[in-house]
Amino acid sequence: MSVFVDNGCNEQHSNCFKMVVYPLVLNVLFSVAGFLLTLKIIPAMREMFITAGLKGRDLGKKDKPEIPEAMGVLCGAVYLICVFVFIPFPFWKAWWENGANDFPHHEFVQWIAALLSICCMIFLGFADDVLNLKWRHKLLLPTMASLPILMVYIVNYGSTTVVVPKPLRFILGITVNLGALYYVYMGMLAVFCTNAINIVAGINGVEVGQSWVITLSVMVFNCIELQGDCWRAHLFSLYLLVPFLAVSSALFYFNWYPSSVFVGDTYCYFAGMTFAVVGILGRFSKTLLLFFIPQVLNFLYSLPQLFHIIPCPRHRLPKLNPETGLHYTSKSIFKESDLNFLGRLSLGVLETFHLIDVKRDVGEDKEFIEINNLTLINFVLRLAGPTNEKILTIYILVIQVVGSLIAFLIRYQMAKFFYDV
Amino acid sequence: MSVFVDNGCNEQHSNCFKMVVYPLVLNVLFSVAGFLLTLKIIPAMREMFITAGLKGRDLGKKDKPEIPEAMGVLCGAVYLICVFVFIPFPFWKAWWENGANDFPHHEFVQWIAALLSICCMIFLGFADDVLNLKWRHKLLLPTMASLPILMVYIVNYGSTTVVVPKPLRFILGITVNLGALYYVYMGMLAVFCTNAINIVAGINGVEVGQSWVITLSVMVFNCIELQGDCWRAHLFSLYLLVPFLAVSSALFYFNWYPSSVFVGDTYCYFAGMTFAVVGILGRFSKTLLLFFIPQVLNFLYSLPQLFHIIPCPRHRLPKLNPETGLHYTSKSIFKESDLNFLGRLSLGVLETFHLIDVKRDVGEDKEFIEINNLTLINFVLRLAGPTNEKILTIYILVIQVVGSLIAFLIRYQMAKFFYDV
Repeated sequence: MSVFVDNGCNEQHSNCFKMVVYPLVLNVLFSVAGFLLTLKIIPAMREMFITAGLKGRDLGKKDKPEIPEAMGVLCGAVYLICVFVFIPFPFWKAWWENGANDFPHHEFVQWIAALLSICCMIFLGFADDVLNLKWRHKLLLPTMASLPILMVYIVNYGSTTVVVPKPLRFILGITVNLGALYYVYMGMLAVFCTNAINIVAGINGVEVGQSWVITLSVMVFNCIELQGDCWRAHLFSLYLLVPFLAVSSALFYFNWYPSSVFVGDTYCYFAGMTFAVVGILGRFSKTLLLFFIPQVLNFLYSLPQLFHIIPCPRHRLPKLNPETGLHYTSKSIFKESDLNFLGRLSLGVLETFHLIDVKRDVGEDKEFIEINNLTLINFVLRLAGPTNEKILTIYILVIQVVGSLIAFLIRYQMAKFFYDV
Repeated sequence: MSVFVDNGCNEQHSNCFKMVVYPLVLNVLFSVAGFLLTLKIIPAMREMFITAGLKGRDLGKKDKPEIPEAMGVLCGAVYLICVFVFIPFPFWKAWWENGANDFPHHEFVQWIAALLSICCMIFLGFADDVLNLKWRHKLLLPTMASLPILMVYIVNYGSTTVVVPKPLRFILGITVNLGALYYVYMGMLAVFCTNAINIVAGINGVEVGQSWVITLSVMVFNCIELQGDCWRAHLFSLYLLVPFLAVSSALFYFNWYPSSVFVGDTYCYFAGMTFAVVGILGRFSKTLLLFFIPQVLNFLYSLPQLFHIIPCPRHRLPKLNPETGLHYTSKSIFKESDLNFLGRLSLGVLETFHLIDVKRDVGEDKEFIEINNLTLINFVLRLAGPTNEKILTIYILVIQVVGSLIAFLIRYQMAKFFYDV
């Protein structure tokens, strides 16, 4: 129990229990209920989704079965219900003892704002799944949805000062006030998180799987940090992540290979915003980014195609060979002469470092060039060769786990060289 | 300027301006922007909705044209953006002068919770439009969505004591503490508001029209009450209603006869929750209900069909006669002998008071009975005779306006007999 005796909870043992352990136990109980509820309603509502036209073909299977899409919305709804019902409990004691006068409104507003941002994002994700929004909306909407938590950050903490890493201190000093830039950074974090998970996608179980690993990693980090000075912030993060892990697990069960449901953009946005919320309001946004190493690499690798410097086909998911049942890298074919300067430059760099497969003189007139599509999944396929879809998902999840291990290494070992820990 | 000098704002004239008038002017400006944005995106996104299968046939027209459905979701999204961007301004001064320490978190959390409830409801309404949820969800979900504002009500006010009307004081005393019952009442208010608008529906423009009249009525009430002690609560209500009026007006333009878009359950839920939020957090829930007189009457009149005491067909909207272009009351046909005791009782009561048209001995074996469907719209058609759809909507809106006038009469004249005003 040293965790709670150390910090803030030093009055009485029994009080700590009431303040921290009771709510956490309740949180876990509600989460289990949420898990079971999600497990029950996903199959029950399959037909409703298909009837509504929310369905897609699983291109990774020989018979391309039709599967309900956007099922992440059920996770999101159950998650909101769980957290709504849970919120009163951490505040019960404060309210009972102090009434409305001395109530910790500043903590309460964090909860409400966190849920507002998450609810907004579930709503927008679902709207995206139904309406197929444009790319500019996908960037604008998470920015809007992150406004509530940014406002709460401003009024609750307001600090935009960051500690400068040791090697740079001789130029910048010990701390630098980033001012408005810091808010821009946090807004961009929300946009990044929501979209980063959405672009490592397309094979069964990979969207939920990676979110699952990230959630567990952040939860481990929170548990470690419960012993530090910021334990309240990390407890808050845990309260939000336990139910998220629960509803995600239920979805994972149905989305695992062979998927009987697709998760949709809804789930990816929901997951991304949940991470952004706990990172920003838990004040560990930099550490959070460390758990996104595979997504960052995927994003960097994808950049030339995302910005259409190199032509980008509509779907970049790996290609199934129906005879072998194995997945191969998917290709993009275009005329090299059509590339602008930037396109040729990035192609050159990628080729020099052997990061892509290039095949020239393709087509009848030998004027086309063929490269593998620039996604992490295709990159893994390049290394591993043709792979079964299930194994491929496992590879990606292993990479995610390794990424988290590296994140912990950086956070707890390497950080010593850059900061006074 | 007596409004502001009277109450709370008695320091300095210029300060009042900064605190109240500047934000209100900004609120109106943002609302105008929201109006224009909604006006622009509704036609721009028509095709997107039709492609997504969000469409319905307008059964009130001869050629039954196909029209995009659930367009209220665009209103909702623009509304959220408007209010998100506006929120900082009423708090700007407090934040600038006091920083994070003395910040009015209790007021701030009202905003965030109000938006959370509204956002939840827009999301659930849209999910309903897409998935066609069951009736039990329509009752459960608004209850869930109203939890955030109820929690804020508890921690901010917590008072569940109501003043007893004079005639009952000799039994109950001057005040009665309703305790948990009061929260049940407020939760039911949210359920009622969201569904009440949804069941006065089915002819062009009637959903937005009635919401529009209610909004304006509540705004007039708020403006009157700005001179009272609770001016902050009424100002809060105004801040939320002005943008709502703006986005509704834009939708009204397209939904007016002949409609080029349908508003969907999304809009009805969105509108209902917005009213519930301002009523509960503005602490005028009883007065709010007065502005719902036509909806309450419609609800009471519909009760036998809503609870299936009398058989209820899937659609109860009035019936178009394609030759005359006029709308007639729609009928429900069933065997009188199939009714249970309650059914026969309510039929008898309705018949005795001449509230329905009854035709007996219908069908070949003369064993059926035919009555008009129990909705306010059909009731109006009974009185007015066959009517053009546009005129019918105008009738309903006139009833709504008359209802509001009666509400003001009750609130400001008759209340004197029941309460010490």
